[in-house]
Amino acid sequence: MRVLLPDLPEFHALSGHDEHGVPGVEFDFYSPEHVPADGAEGVVLWLARGETREKLLKTPGLKWVLTLTAGIDHVQPHLPEGVALYNANRLHDRAVAVHVAALMLSALRGLPQFRDAQTEGRWASATNPRDSGLHTLDGQKVVIWGYGQIGRILEGLLTPFGAEVDGIRSATPELQRDGLLSRADWVVLLLPSTPDTRGIVNAETLGRLKRGAWLANAGRGNLIVMDDLLAALDSGGLGGAVLDVTDPEPLPEDHPLWARKNVTITPHIASTTTDLVARGASLTRDFLLTMQQGQEPEGRVTQGQKY
Amino acid sequence: MRVLLPDLPEFHALSGHDEHGVPGVEFDFYSPEHVPADGAEGVVLWLARGETREKLLKTPGLKWVLTLTAGIDHVQPHLPEGVALYNANRLHDRAVAVHVAALMLSALRGLPQFRDAQTEGRWASATNPRDSGLHTLDGQKVVIWGYGQIGRILEGLLTPFGAEVDGIRSATPELQRDGLLSRADWVVLLLPSTPDTRGIVNAETLGRLKRGAWLANAGRGNLIVMDDLLAALDSGGLGGAVLDVTDPEPLPEDHPLWARKNVTITPHIASTTTDLVARGASLTRDFLLTMQQGQEPEGRVTQGQKY
Repeated sequence: MRVLLPDLPEFHALSGHDEHGVPGVEFDFYSPEHVPADGAEGVVLWLARGETREKLLKTPGLKWVLTLTAGIDHVQPHLPEGVALYNANRLHDRAVAVHVAALMLSALRGLPQFRDAQTEGRWASATNPRDSGLHTLDGQKVVIWGYGQIGRILEGLLTPFGAEVDGIRSATPELQRDGLLSRADWVVLLLPSTPDTRGIVNAETLGRLKRGAWLANAGRGNLIVMDDLLAALDSGGLGGAVLDVTDPEPLPEDHPLWARKNVTITPHIASTTTDLVARGASLTRDFLLTMQQGQEPEGRVTQGQKY
Repeated sequence: MRVLLPDLPEFHALSGHDEHGVPGVEFDFYSPEHVPADGAEGVVLWLARGETREKLLKTPGLKWVLTLTAGIDHVQPHLPEGVALYNANRLHDRAVAVHVAALMLSALRGLPQFRDAQTEGRWASATNPRDSGLHTLDGQKVVIWGYGQIGRILEGLLTPFGAEVDGIRSATPELQRDGLLSRADWVVLLLPSTPDTRGIVNAETLGRLKRGAWLANAGRGNLIVMDDLLAALDSGGLGGAVLDVTDPEPLPEDHPLWARKNVTITPHIASTTTDLVARGASLTRDFLLTMQQGQEPEGRVTQGQKY
């Protein structure tokens, strides 16, 4: 078996003869500067963009692709017929849940505003707590739209803070879904981007929310119609938003969303940790060992993603 | 029984004849502009500073003081002989624990730096996760110095994030304490300010910490020797700090701590929520009803605070 890997030290370790190695597999390595052209059975996709990714997906003899991302919308449309696709949800699930919890708690405790005050050297305590705008999660209704593994982890993190968590799945009846949305203090989007979910949060959806509700998005940027989001923020209908993903990405420097005081934007790094590449290489190793044993590895994408 | 209360709507409700009222108690109300001079058995202290507080503590006939704070260091030295002091830990415990968790998670997920980037309209994603500086709490050792009720709540919040939590109490042997400090990824200060704890975090203590460890303080600002903190941040010995309390408070506009990028400062609002005054009035009501029944209310401070 010949496999193409990203040209990073963590992945080179897989060709070693120690306990990190995978014996019996021939590895070659790609980078934006160099994509091997002589064919391979498998490709592990990681930080490969645009032309690099296109070249990799045209590798002669390709039988399978393992993308070390959770989303597959950047791969699936370009995947040749008959090539198996695997993704790597479990690499990202926990960090994404932690990041969403951090964004929510940060907003509830006013940390973005206190950061702004710190930049000005200003001790910004309110005279009366009533005017502080500060909250805990006690008794707050959190609705997770796209309730899968990340959602379950997030629920486990938020429940000790006193949050009341509900989930919406693709199977949730529309009436029940709209009822949950109308009572939510927080709506957390963890949906994948599919033809069904693009623009699912629009003026109509936002209009269903309780006045002052907050929105979190760690799914995909195009779940939200950005102009409708801006309008809901301007009208005060929406209390604020915490977004790890935007549409487009990167968000252009002059985009009006940057300047909204009750919006927090992080640059699609919810799943990033300093050891993410090492964890990705470790997952790849497990994947290959499973395959060598003639078993089906985790993460096979059989069709469009559901939630 | 005659009792002096803060001149705020939430406390006026205690003199009502509905279910919020406390029958049989005569109330009068104080403000910075007016402190009643005709004597009272009890005083409920809240947002009373300097001269107002001094006048209140000299109220003729005073038998007890209920301070709706957790700390007592601003009251105890001025308390007349024979006057009983009560504090209100349970009013603050949960919000303080939530605030500390929010500060820690915010730092681990790089939110202060992303806020700075947002102000500049900059999409600040690292090319390689290795350089991101982003973490979760998984496997991180958190040592809570001053392990009481807030510490127990904080432990319950952080454990689901994968943190390994240990506590230091005043009874913890010094050798054990220093061992815990030397292994900690995070040291969280929840100590009261007493003659024993002032300056307890100094060059020597900071020198014991693992290189790159982080410090959180939601106790009192003077637990930390500020110049030693700045030196430890400059040397890189300390990874960073999240501080809800400083020395002095408010921190002066030109203090060097404001400008440290790996320091987050919030203005002593860890226990603040928009409903804090209402919760304070409700606690006062319970306190008075208990006293009317001839029972001892919660929160009696019998001597200096231990932890």
